Amino acid sequence: MTPSSDLREALFGAPYVGHLPAGARHAITDVPGVFVGHVTLADGPLQTGVTVVCPTPADLAATSPDARWDPFRTKIPAAAAVINGFGKSVGLMQIDELGVIEAPVALTNTFSVSHVVLGQLRAALAANPDIGRGSPSLNPTVLECNDGYLNDMQAFAVTEAHYAQALANASSEVEQGAVGAGRGMSSFGLKGGIGSASRVVETAGQTFTVGVLVLSNFGRASQLTIAGRHVGPVLDERLAQPEQSTEPERGSIIMLVATDAPLDARQLRRVATRTSAGLARTGSVYGHGSGDVALALTTGYTVPYDAMGRVAPAALVPDTQLDPIFQATADATEQAILHALFAAESVLGRDGHVRRALADVLPDWATL
Amino acid sequence: MTPSSDLREALFGAPYVGHLPAGARHAITDVPGVFVGHVTLADGPLQTGVTVVCPTPADLAATSPDARWDPFRTKIPAAAAVINGFGKSVGLMQIDELGVIEAPVALTNTFSVSHVVLGQLRAALAANPDIGRGSPSLNPTVLECNDGYLNDMQAFAVTEAHYAQALANASSEVEQGAVGAGRGMSSFGLKGGIGSASRVVETAGQTFTVGVLVLSNFGRASQLTIAGRHVGPVLDERLAQPEQSTEPERGSIIMLVATDAPLDARQLRRVATRTSAGLARTGSVYGHGSGDVALALTTGYTVPYDAMGRVAPAALVPDTQLDPIFQATADATEQAILHALFAAESVLGRDGHVRRALADVLPDWATL
Amino acid sequence: MTPSSDLREALFGAPYVGHLPAGARHAITDVPGVFVGHVTLADGPLQTGVTVVCPTPADLAATSPDARWDPFRTKIPAAAAVINGFGKSVGLMQIDELGVIEAPVALTNTFSVSHVVLGQLRAALAANPDIGRGSPSLNPTVLECNDGYLNDMQAFAVTEAHYAQALANASSEVEQGAVGAGRGMSSFGLKGGIGSASRVVETAGQTFTVGVLVLSNFGRASQLTIAGRHVGPVLDERLAQPEQSTEPERGSIIMLVATDAPLDARQLRRVATRTSAGLARTGSVYGHGSGDVALALTTGYTVPYDAMGRVAPAALVPDTQLDPIFQATADATEQAILHALFAAESVLGRDGHVRRALADVLPDWATL
Amino acid sequence: MTPSSDLREALFGAPYVGHLPAGARHAITDVPGVFVGHVTLADGPLQTGVTVVCPTPADLAATSPDARWDPFRTKIPAAAAVINGFGKSVGLMQIDELGVIEAPVALTNTFSVSHVVLGQLRAALAANPDIGRGSPSLNPTVLECNDGYLNDMQAFAVTEAHYAQALANASSEVEQGAVGAGRGMSSFGLKGGIGSASRVVETAGQTFTVGVLVLSNFGRASQLTIAGRHVGPVLDERLAQPEQSTEPERGSIIMLVATDAPLDARQLRRVATRTSAGLARTGSVYGHGSGDVALALTTGYTVPYDAMGRVAPAALVPDTQLDPIFQATADATEQAILHALFAAESVLGRDGHVRRALADVLPDWATL
Repeated sequence: MTPSSDLREALFGAPYVGHLPAGARHAITDVPGVFVGHVTLADGPLQTGVTVVCPTPADLAATSPDARWDPFRTKIPAAAAVINGFGKSVGLMQIDELGVIEAPVALTNTFSVSHVVLGQLRAALAANPDIGRGSPSLNPTVLECNDGYLNDMQAFAVTEAHYAQALANASSEVEQGAVGAGRGMSSFGLKGGIGSASRVVETAGQTFTVGVLVLSNFGRASQLTIAGRHVGPVLDERLAQPEQSTEPERGSIIMLVATDAPLDARQLRRVATRTSAGLARTGSVYGHGSGDVALALTTGYTVPYDAMGRVAPAALVPDTQLDPIFQATADATEQAILHALFAAESVLGRDGHVRRALADVLPDWATL
Repeated sequence: MTPSSDLREALFGAPYVGHLPAGARHAITDVPGVFVGHVTLADGPLQTGVTVVCPTPADLAATSPDARWDPFRTKIPAAAAVINGFGKSVGLMQIDELGVIEAPVALTNTFSVSHVVLGQLRAALAANPDIGRGSPSLNPTVLECNDGYLNDMQAFAVTEAHYAQALANASSEVEQGAVGAGRGMSSFGLKGGIGSASRVVETAGQTFTVGVLVLSNFGRASQLTIAGRHVGPVLDERLAQPEQSTEPERGSIIMLVATDAPLDARQLRRVATRTSAGLARTGSVYGHGSGDVALALTTGYTVPYDAMGRVAPAALVPDTQLDPIFQATADATEQAILHALFAAESVLGRDGHVRRALADVLPDWATL
Repeated sequence: MTPSSDLREALFGAPYVGHLPAGARHAITDVPGVFVGHVTLADGPLQTGVTVVCPTPADLAATSPDARWDPFRTKIPAAAAVINGFGKSVGLMQIDELGVIEAPVALTNTFSVSHVVLGQLRAALAANPDIGRGSPSLNPTVLECNDGYLNDMQAFAVTEAHYAQALANASSEVEQGAVGAGRGMSSFGLKGGIGSASRVVETAGQTFTVGVLVLSNFGRASQLTIAGRHVGPVLDERLAQPEQSTEPERGSIIMLVATDAPLDARQLRRVATRTSAGLARTGSVYGHGSGDVALALTTGYTVPYDAMGRVAPAALVPDTQLDPIFQATADATEQAILHALFAAESVLGRDGHVRRALADVLPDWATL
Repeated sequence: MTPSSDLREALFGAPYVGHLPAGARHAITDVPGVFVGHVTLADGPLQTGVTVVCPTPADLAATSPDARWDPFRTKIPAAAAVINGFGKSVGLMQIDELGVIEAPVALTNTFSVSHVVLGQLRAALAANPDIGRGSPSLNPTVLECNDGYLNDMQAFAVTEAHYAQALANASSEVEQGAVGAGRGMSSFGLKGGIGSASRVVETAGQTFTVGVLVLSNFGRASQLTIAGRHVGPVLDERLAQPEQSTEPERGSIIMLVATDAPLDARQLRRVATRTSAGLARTGSVYGHGSGDVALALTTGYTVPYDAMGRVAPAALVPDTQLDPIFQATADATEQAILHALFAAESVLGRDGHVRRALADVLPDWATL
């Protein structure tokens, strides 16, 4: 679980962003206590899936590496930032009010949100049969993007069982690219999908990890900027097809940030906001039709749901020491988006629609 | 459709709130273009339902009283106000960003949100087969309260078909009390449910109607205040039962406001905020566990979803002339909550749980 | 400093609100560590002033009752809620971002905000000569209402020295009524001004105090509701004067909440929001022209501004135990508004304008 | 006033950002109806000033090029976006509530906000003697950054008269660099200040201009990114001085966006949010201590303050056609920041502090 502090190379041939070192896995699972699971559906017109990010308290994860956490009874501090609210994600209102999540965070396509919500409810009820009876109800937390270009969303292919399977698959290894909820996603006219990255920072006298996982489905070809290089115009030329050039953007990006730095919900909201800086560096201007939503959480401490007396939180990183965490959030977000693009394989989906991999279309990006 | 401007008596024996006159039906359907439909499930441990509020442009409703509106292609201006965000309502993030709704507003119990969302998707897809393909996806708009005291939410009794049926039932007549989504709701330790009210105002040189419909499921017995009379302490004594007195509040209230006054989304957010004034008069302090959410919409004009050129909205009521609308919103909210209480019948639900009607428990409220 | 837990009578002949007991002083200064000072200007057309609320950490106040706190180096947790943002208060943006105040909270008239800001800057610079040089700059915190009906705001009568004097006057005794910033304020067509109240609650296994101080300058005569009794129509008749009846409302109310309960900024924002429930009970619907702003702070712990390492906050009251604090906030807000009205004396201001005291105009309010 | 649609070269030797053409003046004054005036104080330890941006309705400006607008009686639609709220700007709360500004927008140093507010009040009172008496009070709109490294803010050098002079100086010519409020500002360890830029877009069947003016005072040397080229590490080396390397960032940026596209306040808030994308491209991660605030306004129509009846706004650009305006906002923001850096001259301020010009320190930026 000790991240190497000298890892400054990116995955998948992507360029490395910034000067902060990455964790050992180059992924959100470098954050102690974070596990990720996918279920991928790839069958003709069905190109979609589910991805689940499970946060476990860092101190529990340190002693019991195989433990998976049910955040219903002992909750995980979290906060969201809505960069552009054209989206259908579920659960953010209560997170904003209470500053915690009480379910693992699930990602899927827009039309499958309800089935994944039901999967979260079933899983929570199995573990806590009193939910909605003696106990309060559950706040499902399901975020989404629209993969309708490649995937036939109207088939409602994702089921409750797929959520359960994705949860069961959760581990420290994060497969990236056209997998899980990312299977059918598009980005900059290319194949998008799941990307992840991490950065290790020193602040407040300690070492902390910041990890990001994105469901990347945004951007017009003409905007693409890779490590500061504006390759969009070339990409635009190479992709030029009547259909694509007139297609309105209907993208989105979900950006999940995790850290083991103990922060309260107000501070986590500040962290979540910094994803937009990393997003902007890739060329996004948070387009009208793009639901750009960030959620930040910490595994650094927990919040008991049924305390009767006062509760001492962990000692927090003070705001004046947040800049390294902000920098890490922006850098890891940009890096995760690049990982999603560089890891992607070309995908053929519904009605003959194809999204080609960046590796195919722009192998020479670095010299453009 | 012309409201009587001299109607100053409440329904169901409830006291009349304030000095503004009510519309002819004493309900949100006094607002030109608003229709309401219920499906009620009342079968032993299943005490729940669905309620749908369908807004139709007022000018269309005037010429075609039977028309029902699909707000997907020509949208209805709307805005929400989250008074206390401990809730699981769906759709508010996009409403906040874009200032419109694109589906009828549905109400149900917490666990049934997903099935009603699916019902909205099916209905929208039936009418617009291109949704999620050539067209953007739909923003489902489903608001909820937790009826778990009377209703076995874990039975997931509400189906997609119930939503469709509620939509088909929509009319100008609004049944109130223990019906529709209100079937299993509790309020102040009594039977809650659906309540509605309206007020007619003169402002900006015209006559407008403000209507409110509430799904009322909030409040501790000790807080109940009826028309300024704090009857809570007496109610508390009369209800005194070990179980109820120690039960933590897990209530909520959804407050829908409709008006034919042409207002933009910023103004509608101001209107939605005023529901909290009416709510407070009944004794609420927006308790921790109460998801108190308001949504305001206007039938005064529409917003085309696919305009390529500039769009002239209706001439708006200026902010300086909003005070009568604010007063009407607060008054109609308080009135609607009282209607829900006074219209309710006692209900026996799951596990022998009973919520008694106010008419049963406090017939003498006016002399306490 | 020990509040009597059996004090359930209001001041000034006002009715007592709710069932929670008041503190010994019936004022915000019942909260350990809170001190209040006024400067009142009452000279013909000049009817205005400054009021300062100084929070001191409760533990320091317990050992050094005469200590006054400079919150610049060790800050006081705080959060605001904007009920209606038609106002010119200064400092709220940074409070929202950082969750602390770093100056005592000052109240004055709208045009005098700048002079009081300068007074705060001078005072802070005198104590911390490095502000704006080696140290960050100060976030002045000055909230306001428009007293232009009685006071000639264009005379800019309040000076920096008045702020310093109000600060020096800060003590545990809170004069109420037409004093300090409240000198020229109007409410419901009557004389408004400064009011304060407190409530003592048991929660999370401890006793805490919630105190409120209002600068009350809102409301139309027709709306006035005293302890649930809607006396507005009678008041409207008795005040009937051409000038007053057509005068548009240009009121406002500032509601300051203090508590010794340790809460974080997110929780304090929830507390601040509950003032609107107390405000509504007096008849307000948060009118268009009324800048209705609440600020909540705690003396239960402090936030060091220059910590280099992690900082342990106090053990917090959990959200599930907040309901008594919410109830106390709403009750004390309503009580404070009533105290402002009942304590007021009639005032003759600029151009022969008069605001009469409630005691004069409605001595028989309880029998109406 | 007709912008050249082929102007794609930047000013001051800066690189040109993006593919959209600039207006003829490369400045916010390319937007019909926008005028800018500066007063610069440069005298030893006093290195500061005031900048005023005056919006005038575009149609009036077209017929009367010399007209200057008092937005008190007929207001200008506007909205703000707070990217990071560590700042002391004045006026945003009311703008958020009402969606208009009612004074020209002034920029200055943090300690001088009060004097400029008083200048705005005096100017408004001179034109409208009824303000705060028969009329509502004024909402001053003054935004600020901290220029305390170069300027002795404690001298309070800016006076009300300087505001009046800046207003009188307003014209279509925008001097850029170390002028006006920008005189003492720092950015990336270099001299910052005033920068402006514009972009011309086609959307909704028409041509509109988007202009940005920034008061640029943010960023660590190591972050600087010019047109995608991360030159920060080299800059960091070249600037290396004990004092600067350990100095905490206490920066900020104010970003004003103007357009003649008719948008309502909700849409203008969306536009204001897009400044953060341009800001991020220069290397900012919205650092903890940086008050990053954007304000967007339109000269496309006005809002009468005293309408008694309904008011028809202009036909609005629909949300689906906003992407070109979002792109222009991000591009012009990045361009304006670059202009501020490239236009700056080195400045020697208080206590021997120096900020050198980018042209001095990084003449070879394009080859690094």
